[in-house]
Amino acid sequence: MHLNSLTLDNINSNVWKAKYAVRGELAVRAEAYRSRLAQKEGVDLPFDKVISANIGNPQQLDQKPITFFRQVLSLLEYPPLLEKEDVLLNDLGYQRDVIERARWLLRECRSVGAYSHSQGIPGIRNSVAKFISERDCHPSDPASVFLTGGASSGVNTLLNIIRSKPETGVLVPIPQYPLYTATLSVLNARLVPYYLDEEHAWGTDMDAIRSALAKAKSEGTDVRAIVVINPGNPTGASLGEEDIKNVLRIAVEEKLVVIADEVYQTNVFLGKFHSFKKVLRDLQSAEAGKFDHVELASLHSVSKGMVGECGQRGGYFELVGFDPKVVEQIYKLVSISLCPPVTGQCLVELMVNPPKEGEPSYALYKQEYDDIFAGLKERATALYEAFKEMEGVECQEPQGSMYLFPAIKLPPGAARAAANEGRKADEFYCIRLLDSTGVCIVPGSGFGQKEGTSHFRTTFLAPGTEWVGRIVKFHKEFMDEFRE
Amino acid sequence: MHLNSLTLDNINSNVWKAKYAVRGELAVRAEAYRSRLAQKEGVDLPFDKVISANIGNPQQLDQKPITFFRQVLSLLEYPPLLEKEDVLLNDLGYQRDVIERARWLLRECRSVGAYSHSQGIPGIRNSVAKFISERDCHPSDPASVFLTGGASSGVNTLLNIIRSKPETGVLVPIPQYPLYTATLSVLNARLVPYYLDEEHAWGTDMDAIRSALAKAKSEGTDVRAIVVINPGNPTGASLGEEDIKNVLRIAVEEKLVVIADEVYQTNVFLGKFHSFKKVLRDLQSAEAGKFDHVELASLHSVSKGMVGECGQRGGYFELVGFDPKVVEQIYKLVSISLCPPVTGQCLVELMVNPPKEGEPSYALYKQEYDDIFAGLKERATALYEAFKEMEGVECQEPQGSMYLFPAIKLPPGAARAAANEGRKADEFYCIRLLDSTGVCIVPGSGFGQKEGTSHFRTTFLAPGTEWVGRIVKFHKEFMDEFRE
Repeated sequence: MHLNSLTLDNINSNVWKAKYAVRGELAVRAEAYRSRLAQKEGVDLPFDKVISANIGNPQQLDQKPITFFRQVLSLLEYPPLLEKEDVLLNDLGYQRDVIERARWLLRECRSVGAYSHSQGIPGIRNSVAKFISERDCHPSDPASVFLTGGASSGVNTLLNIIRSKPETGVLVPIPQYPLYTATLSVLNARLVPYYLDEEHAWGTDMDAIRSALAKAKSEGTDVRAIVVINPGNPTGASLGEEDIKNVLRIAVEEKLVVIADEVYQTNVFLGKFHSFKKVLRDLQSAEAGKFDHVELASLHSVSKGMVGECGQRGGYFELVGFDPKVVEQIYKLVSISLCPPVTGQCLVELMVNPPKEGEPSYALYKQEYDDIFAGLKERATALYEAFKEMEGVECQEPQGSMYLFPAIKLPPGAARAAANEGRKADEFYCIRLLDSTGVCIVPGSGFGQKEGTSHFRTTFLAPGTEWVGRIVKFHKEFMDEFRE
Repeated sequence: MHLNSLTLDNINSNVWKAKYAVRGELAVRAEAYRSRLAQKEGVDLPFDKVISANIGNPQQLDQKPITFFRQVLSLLEYPPLLEKEDVLLNDLGYQRDVIERARWLLRECRSVGAYSHSQGIPGIRNSVAKFISERDCHPSDPASVFLTGGASSGVNTLLNIIRSKPETGVLVPIPQYPLYTATLSVLNARLVPYYLDEEHAWGTDMDAIRSALAKAKSEGTDVRAIVVINPGNPTGASLGEEDIKNVLRIAVEEKLVVIADEVYQTNVFLGKFHSFKKVLRDLQSAEAGKFDHVELASLHSVSKGMVGECGQRGGYFELVGFDPKVVEQIYKLVSISLCPPVTGQCLVELMVNPPKEGEPSYALYKQEYDDIFAGLKERATALYEAFKEMEGVECQEPQGSMYLFPAIKLPPGAARAAANEGRKADEFYCIRLLDSTGVCIVPGSGFGQKEGTSHFRTTFLAPGTEWVGRIVKFHKEFMDEFRE
């Protein structure tokens, strides 16, 4: 008999079934190396720095926050500074628009230490609606906007609402960001995987969606929603308009709720970003009646893009076409956790309503924003070029987001060595890479991949290119060791 | 056929079954009044200000944040200020310890915009463990501390882990903070209510717990945990050591996990706060062997007490006696939502490690802290005195937390009028109060109460006493109207 009340055998089995590789074994091992190095205990390690390329965490990798955003936040945290305008303007380099925005936000929230409306501060929801209207050239209603503590909490809310029984299924692209599979697992709902088309820049393959649907239905799954991550995580793909239309067509045919994860909407290097909302509204105008009842939830966040404020936990989702009675239930569910972090909500305001041309903070904002964008693009390209040269590695051209997801053909010897350790081949590769170089990436199995293939996901956030060299060198040695 | 995919009939029924009165109909109605008044549309209303006494939201009701905390946070949000030490010290009134603490926190988190460790920043967990050790005179292990986005998210995590099947039951005090019932409902687990003893200052009644347990078992409920809220919400009760020992004895006998919600630990006016951890460790020393395997999770938060920073979403829980494999699963579950807000984590650091005697910020900190405490006590007493004078109202003496929870005996005429509107009597009373005075309180039915009794919960956070006068006047008129 166990002495403990709670054991692995009697806790929520849906939790232990869940997998979340992004912060799993490799991340824990990388943290252990980092802390050994910090305590000068790592003298025996073959590297002197850990590179966390496992997670899209820009500011952990020295991306500087946008000055305007942080100046406003500093005033929100300590409003008595507003009584010293001359010091702010003359000694500290704050501009007048920083002060005005802080005053406006304080009127809206009273204090960042007070609970806000559970759906988010009304004035900020107005700003979000205005941003969406201008982005899409179609109106947006602030009553349909929910501010969230990052997109993750929004996804959790939406899937929780949709899940009505263990047979409830949700179409999720594979490879995917494991938030989706992990949340479905915790909710005891069914994952309905549809494979993205690696040969076509990880595009959305309608046949794959249809066959996934048919298979799920034959297994008794009640498929209620489809998730699309655009730009893609981990794939980096950026969907064209036609792809999005096709997804919406399937949503109509199959009465699926569309969950559009658009947190990388400003991280687009090739082509341009098309929002699901805009494409849906365009279709509704063009083909009267047919698309009127599509239910779309689209998510955005302050964590990615040039904002990169993951630690501040801000985001939103907009609901389109939802039954108002369902929206009420969503409100009730989010109200149980009271409200999203208020400073995170304020960051959403700053993200959707940044300084405009002619305003005092605009020039610096623009320069910082463009520099970050250019840096990301440059590093993506450098990494892509390196991967092209590596034996057995095939990588799609970077289009967007913060990741590359190359395929690696590992020699059979590596697969055997991995099996001996009870590991998958890609996992084995990533652990060896971490142990030899301090570079932490995530094996493709953490995101899902076609049977018999291996991949890994790496961010291109780390500054410099020295760490890319470490990967190239490791890869060569690894291949040499296991080549037959 | 419904045009929508999602309808009330096919979404997660556990969500629509959940009730959360603190932000329910009354709160929504109060917000509508507030917005009408703000837009000068409320000229016809019989009040000119809405008083939100429905929720413990100190800074919404003009409680000033602690200067030291907010100065540190302002530097964390905009670290370039640290390059202007002379301006900070000479022109802005920052003390040297503010600057030092900000530098230390920035070393720990790198940037408040970066994701932290999912369990919370290691250095801050060390500070929490030190705080607990000093509070309880028993060691605490930082590896057992999880930082959270407020206590609500901690409760959600713990209940999610414990819930393994629909028959899983959790003992919850009645009246209770509806977070517990709502979360159990969303998780499709069973509420096992045990009634607190109103006649004895809302104390914990062992017989009530035992009979609740027996009844639950006879219904096939697998009771796994007991929740204790101390100091009590909504009751304001503060438990004595013997009450806590009794709960721990039942936990041993019945192998129950103890969830100690101690977010009001500094809001104690009568007697002193006893932590479950300290009482458990004392018992373990005194009665060797018997209490060794108790599993205790105790929660704390930056939202309440003299900190009052609800909107910043910070908190922690400490696990004692948990199986390490279960702790790993808790880690995995929280890692899916990445990390708690980093500024909220920093506030936890500041709460558990405030300025000490002899440090430059100490005098002001002490004065602010003591003033807030005295103000709360004074308003609690004023409200209590007013309730004592009101016909048919009976209120326990305020001991702690931020609430009073008086019983009201409503005339039969009021009950009939309520029934005509399809409402409970206490709900009817609270709506009439809001409509006539702008004061928003929560009916006792939102927290649970014995059949046939009526109560309401009010915070004593609102400044001044004018609003108390409004309640007294309304009550008299209400009683006169319905007296028979």
